[in-house]
Amino acid sequence: MPISTELTDRLGIQHPVLLAPMDVVANARLVTAVSAAGGFGILGGGYGDRTWLEQETAKLGKSTAPFGIGFITWSMAKQPELLDIALDARPRAVMLSFGDPKPFGARIKQAGAILICQVQNEELARQALDAGADILVAQGTEAGGHGASRTTLDVVPAIVDLVAGRVPVVAAGGIADGRGLAAMLMLGASGVLLGTRFYASEEADIAEEAKRRVCAAKSGETVRGIIFDLSRNNVWPAPFTGRCLVNDHARRWIGREVELMQNVRKVGADYAEAKARGDFDIAAVIAGEAVGLIHDIPPAAEIVGRIIAEAEQSLRGRRNSTASIG
Amino acid sequence: MPISTELTDRLGIQHPVLLAPMDVVANARLVTAVSAAGGFGILGGGYGDRTWLEQETAKLGKSTAPFGIGFITWSMAKQPELLDIALDARPRAVMLSFGDPKPFGARIKQAGAILICQVQNEELARQALDAGADILVAQGTEAGGHGASRTTLDVVPAIVDLVAGRVPVVAAGGIADGRGLAAMLMLGASGVLLGTRFYASEEADIAEEAKRRVCAAKSGETVRGIIFDLSRNNVWPAPFTGRCLVNDHARRWIGREVELMQNVRKVGADYAEAKARGDFDIAAVIAGEAVGLIHDIPPAAEIVGRIIAEAEQSLRGRRNSTASIG
Repeated sequence: MPISTELTDRLGIQHPVLLAPMDVVANARLVTAVSAAGGFGILGGGYGDRTWLEQETAKLGKSTAPFGIGFITWSMAKQPELLDIALDARPRAVMLSFGDPKPFGARIKQAGAILICQVQNEELARQALDAGADILVAQGTEAGGHGASRTTLDVVPAIVDLVAGRVPVVAAGGIADGRGLAAMLMLGASGVLLGTRFYASEEADIAEEAKRRVCAAKSGETVRGIIFDLSRNNVWPAPFTGRCLVNDHARRWIGREVELMQNVRKVGADYAEAKARGDFDIAAVIAGEAVGLIHDIPPAAEIVGRIIAEAEQSLRGRRNSTASIG
Repeated sequence: MPISTELTDRLGIQHPVLLAPMDVVANARLVTAVSAAGGFGILGGGYGDRTWLEQETAKLGKSTAPFGIGFITWSMAKQPELLDIALDARPRAVMLSFGDPKPFGARIKQAGAILICQVQNEELARQALDAGADILVAQGTEAGGHGASRTTLDVVPAIVDLVAGRVPVVAAGGIADGRGLAAMLMLGASGVLLGTRFYASEEADIAEEAKRRVCAAKSGETVRGIIFDLSRNNVWPAPFTGRCLVNDHARRWIGREVELMQNVRKVGADYAEAKARGDFDIAAVIAGEAVGLIHDIPPAAEIVGRIIAEAEQSLRGRRNSTASIG
């Protein structure tokens, strides 16, 4: 029983569920699994690692299902040849997040790919539309990893009203189940983009211990800030900050960012060493506010199936209890 | 075409739309207007002013529609005789927010009133259920005025899962239209509680200039913090902070809270003086993230009607575009 929307029509997919292009975590295996299940997998091109991108796009080339490739725009802009590698893989869509998409929009569309832009406010939405965006992802602060401060419940209707039907709007941030999908459809979104839910999937390319921590974390045990970026010496442009699970390292440094900066060499070395040995008391587990809804590590296809079944149940349940709407 | 839910059944009302008991802004006139329109008005007993409470409950006594009376629990606890005045007015419900409801639950229920408790996380929800809460309001950080840090999209499903059907859950924070109501129904809530939307209503007891600023404010132009409470020397218990429109005073002091505390006598005097003369560049306009959805100052009844019509449209629209859900 499909939930068809403008988004499923535009992308030519069965279910309005997109995989967030989580940097390297969303590898070809996860992308293929989501797309094969009727959702839309987007490769986590992230900051842009040429060897990784060539290797993963080669694997995607063997897939029959449509897929997308995502980049962190401001980082990809430093090595724009990566976009050529991406376009050579014939993705159905390219997703650009965090940075001005204008320099890349025309090339992406000339190559026949759909341009998806992730935005966090109206100004960024206008910029994306100017760049030729075919689909906007409206991302709320609930999202794991990088994002901004406005909530999903605030930013989704704001972007829906701004675009006024010109392009489909996808909701991101804080969504991990079918109730969330159904709720976002009510706000006027045409689908959802999920990171954390797929991070805790069998196929996600991240340490099992990190997945286990996402399952164990309760709602409210994430924090948005700059500790994580400071500790790995990763300077991001404003207004973007990162959301991770609260761990010992976060507890130690939250509110002491200036002191951290003053000691960044030592803290950074310790952080890198902890990350290398998989110590997630120090290294960040990147996760969104929806962690409280995540309790297992199923195959990605099962996640897509569950979300659709739950969303249908929410939509039907409401209709049935609303006797005279029908 | 009613949207009937557990909440409308429990309160014996037509529409699952509750008026937030905004301190003194939600006076008898506004309460009566919301209830007469088929929603549920809750008087803003706030910190507890005996004269005001006697005057407003006397007016409510003449109303034929059901109504509630709300208090800031930790403040009412200092003068618990106010609860007797409230109960003497025969409210259908008493709503307690911010503080342990345990000392008051039994009295409220013995008087035949329904106990509504507003909560911001699972721990507070458990405390409210222990106190005998009949209805929980799950409030997200998007809310205007006092609240905590977790978002509505996070806290609503978390509380819905926690109560597991024992009591109806009402969503609050960031909701100002029927799309929001429909979305919250999908998350498992049985209704919504709105502050800011009714603040900008004809009947709300607040300066016209404050209402005008709510209409003019764009989404993203509110801030949650302690500037406002510090400036009026109003000490709140953790974890509660307040959300207001960003104004000159907020811009001046955000991030300089310690300095404000060091100069609190002077700042406080200036603030009180500005408030007295209605200068909202300094005095706070208490408002939530949903300001971007609010553009006019209609009668409260029109707000209730619009929300229901919009919610029905969202629910129906989704059904129609989901061909095989039917």
